[in-house]
Amino acid sequence: MPTPLDPVDLTARLVRCNSVTPAEGGALVLLEQVLTDAGFACTRVDRGGIANLYARWGKRGANRSFGFNGHTDVVPIGNPDDWTVDPFGADIRDGFLWGRGATDMKSGVAAFVAAACDMVRDTPPDGAIILAITGDEEGDAQHGTTALLDWMAAQGEAMTDCLVGEPTSPNHMGEAMKIGRRGSLTAHFTFHGVQGHSAYPDRAKNPLPAMARLMDRLASHTLDTGTDHFDASTLAVVTMDTGNPATNVIPATCRATLNIRFNDAHTAAGLTDWMQAELDAVAAETSIRIAMAVKVSGDSFLTPPGALSDLIGRAVQAETGRTPELSTSGGTSDARFVKDHCPVVEFGLVGKTMHMVDEKVPVADIHTLKAIYARILRDYFA
Amino acid sequence: MPTPLDPVDLTARLVRCNSVTPAEGGALVLLEQVLTDAGFACTRVDRGGIANLYARWGKRGANRSFGFNGHTDVVPIGNPDDWTVDPFGADIRDGFLWGRGATDMKSGVAAFVAAACDMVRDTPPDGAIILAITGDEEGDAQHGTTALLDWMAAQGEAMTDCLVGEPTSPNHMGEAMKIGRRGSLTAHFTFHGVQGHSAYPDRAKNPLPAMARLMDRLASHTLDTGTDHFDASTLAVVTMDTGNPATNVIPATCRATLNIRFNDAHTAAGLTDWMQAELDAVAAETSIRIAMAVKVSGDSFLTPPGALSDLIGRAVQAETGRTPELSTSGGTSDARFVKDHCPVVEFGLVGKTMHMVDEKVPVADIHTLKAIYARILRDYFA
Repeated sequence: MPTPLDPVDLTARLVRCNSVTPAEGGALVLLEQVLTDAGFACTRVDRGGIANLYARWGKRGANRSFGFNGHTDVVPIGNPDDWTVDPFGADIRDGFLWGRGATDMKSGVAAFVAAACDMVRDTPPDGAIILAITGDEEGDAQHGTTALLDWMAAQGEAMTDCLVGEPTSPNHMGEAMKIGRRGSLTAHFTFHGVQGHSAYPDRAKNPLPAMARLMDRLASHTLDTGTDHFDASTLAVVTMDTGNPATNVIPATCRATLNIRFNDAHTAAGLTDWMQAELDAVAAETSIRIAMAVKVSGDSFLTPPGALSDLIGRAVQAETGRTPELSTSGGTSDARFVKDHCPVVEFGLVGKTMHMVDEKVPVADIHTLKAIYARILRDYFA
Repeated sequence: MPTPLDPVDLTARLVRCNSVTPAEGGALVLLEQVLTDAGFACTRVDRGGIANLYARWGKRGANRSFGFNGHTDVVPIGNPDDWTVDPFGADIRDGFLWGRGATDMKSGVAAFVAAACDMVRDTPPDGAIILAITGDEEGDAQHGTTALLDWMAAQGEAMTDCLVGEPTSPNHMGEAMKIGRRGSLTAHFTFHGVQGHSAYPDRAKNPLPAMARLMDRLASHTLDTGTDHFDASTLAVVTMDTGNPATNVIPATCRATLNIRFNDAHTAAGLTDWMQAELDAVAAETSIRIAMAVKVSGDSFLTPPGALSDLIGRAVQAETGRTPELSTSGGTSDARFVKDHCPVVEFGLVGKTMHMVDEKVPVADIHTLKAIYARILRDYFA
């Protein structure tokens, strides 16, 4: 019979794996061993050169299944000389565990793996526990959680609810969970005219007024004034460029880029349609050809407050004394993929040192996080 | 009694003077000698390191005085190796006189000096002939014709009418005179905001929408639809720049430049006021500080068709068989200064090789130009 898993030790062993995205670095191999030993059925779901691990305890197609999602890949360390510790050393000093991924999010993975292993050993649930762990969250995220979800759908595997273990609190453990995130897209515009002499604009086709008009129209539009759980969506024109040094020359082309952060009142597709319609109107008015390329970082998602957020909130309150805020702030996470499959909420550590040099996590917080995850599992299957 | 002045010989002697702007190069010294010999009262009106020559035949304050204006400074030769002749050699070959200033406008000056000298010798007019010749037309033009006109006003010297001897015909001698020219100004705008993260535009102040809006408003405005003798004024936005490579950053500043070519429905001051008012409105709407710097190359001018253009037209017709078009096309010339003092029209050679390497003038055209100028003087004082 396996001894209880120490989440700090497991975090340390994971930090020692050099899994700078997209490298697997031994992290998923380690987890597969640990989970297999605990009785989980493990499957490596690798795709496009990316390693991913799917682990299930309990029957496939169980009445209810609780899922955890997380990643073992980490961002690059930057300049090693800037670190005061070995980024892959997992030193424990001053009450912190130090190293790349200590916060984001090897500790989170270790905490839910340890909680799940304890649970199935001590109080085997009437249902399934599913761990969907990817090696590609910090990179392109094309073959990470998406690959796991695609594979699950094909295999008839499903989560009834899912918790993403990313850091969610700004300053103190238990401050916030995320029940949604804004979507983000970037649109690049190129305006094609005909070069000419500025004294004879009728012989040229100046693309600049078209750029000015389109950017003015898009930037002037109020996307929304906020929704029940989100602030207002924002649109920021981030650059407009021509590079024409000659005041007597009308240039042939110019370029503009904007970034939209949008709430659940919009979709990336809807916003793209809106921009295309405005583009078409300005192109028709100015006789300037305008090309648009849209890069979607992620659609918005919202899991409305309810059973899942209540469950998590009660567990956090019990273990930390704090009532977590239901937040929708911040950038994108893999929850944007999971939300198409089942209700999903994010809860994890304090994110302060994410992606920084000397990334570190309070050792006590890892234990607290495991306790919260364990309580969530117990209450879910109670 | 002096022998008649050969305008080709005088052109050649002027071309041999290296008077690349702002150098005098001996050109005005030569002309002062020639004109003094012919009975003109000459005064060097030098200012700000620039040499200028004022020459009058006849009484100051005469009933009527006909003036010629021109310049002896020339543009730089560029790379000497690109020339197939000595740029200051004044070689005569294949029916052309070659060299820097052959067209623009040592030949024009030589033609009116020769015509004036002949006139005062052969048929002394009842009035005055005034030659206002500058050494600073191709440069900043701050201390050129302006210095001459300022000095004339201070001395009580005046021209009743003035002909500027700049090249005016695109292809054939006698095709066109210029009764006006469009004005030109360039406006530089800088938009000052506050840098920030594109996900949180409310914490930044994005200058780009202000730039887009102001340029759209200015470019969308119809300045006019043309006047009796001018095409419509034009406004060309020539560049808009930010240089921000980061899509998640709102930049602090951006810049735009536009160029206006305007007819006699406008003044540079009036256009500047209009732009300032639009700028103020956009600054108020967007809370973005906007700075504008306007550089006026020249105001527009028009000498309405009438006695002076009729006089010139008849002379051109008589000597070339062509009826010159009354044009207002092209850039600026010193006529923009003269127009504040008296009616002014420009008529001169074909301008094709102006400012080019291997600048050249048909020898026959110099004789024709002198004949036209001589006929104008005879008819004017007839």
